[in-house]
Amino acid sequence: MQLLGKRWTGLILFQLLSGPQRFSEIESALPVSGRLLTERLKELEKEGLVNRRIYAEVPVRVEYSLTDKGLALEPIFRDLQNWAEKWVEIQS
Amino acid sequence: MQLLGKRWTGLILFQLLSGPQRFSEIESALPVSGRLLTERLKELEKEGLVNRRIYAEVPVRVEYSLTDKGLALEPIFRDLQNWAEKWVEIQS
Repeated sequence: MQLLGKRWTGLILFQLLSGPQRFSEIESALPVSGRLLTERLKELEKEGLVNRRIYAEVPVRVEYSLTDKGLALEPIFRDLQNWAEKWVEIQS
Repeated sequence: MQLLGKRWTGLILFQLLSGPQRFSEIESALPVSGRLLTERLKELEKEGLVNRRIYAEVPVRVEYSLTDKGLALEPIFRDLQNWAEKWVEIQS
């Protein structure tokens, strides 16, 4: 699972914790390039952390969501957040 | 804190959770090169996660240990371990 250490992977998973989202929603929430976001989402899908669901609508709708395996990461993100709030100084 | 995503950083911190250790002890516990271990320990010291203590003995003894900030990462490692045990298949 080297993937978890890759730049943006954590933030993408954290963003998806708030629920299923379209590509454009994730893209506008994070300061990450579309190309890199596509790449990371593909890797996360391959690792079984993210689901990609295509809705047969016009225009077609694609939504990304966390799998059970991805959702199970939630306590780790909560701990990381607590740790950062306590120990990491905000650089102003 | 990009440092936490770097290769070996997590394993070095995890190794130090078991208590203060000399460089050679950490080196023999992890399949990491001495050069990379030195580099990572310096970064971790700079970030305030690891203490480096020198004992004025002959020969000189140098021990590495977690700071309070480093020790506070323990719940994250515990959650990660639980997550991995449940969700990551061992590749044989």
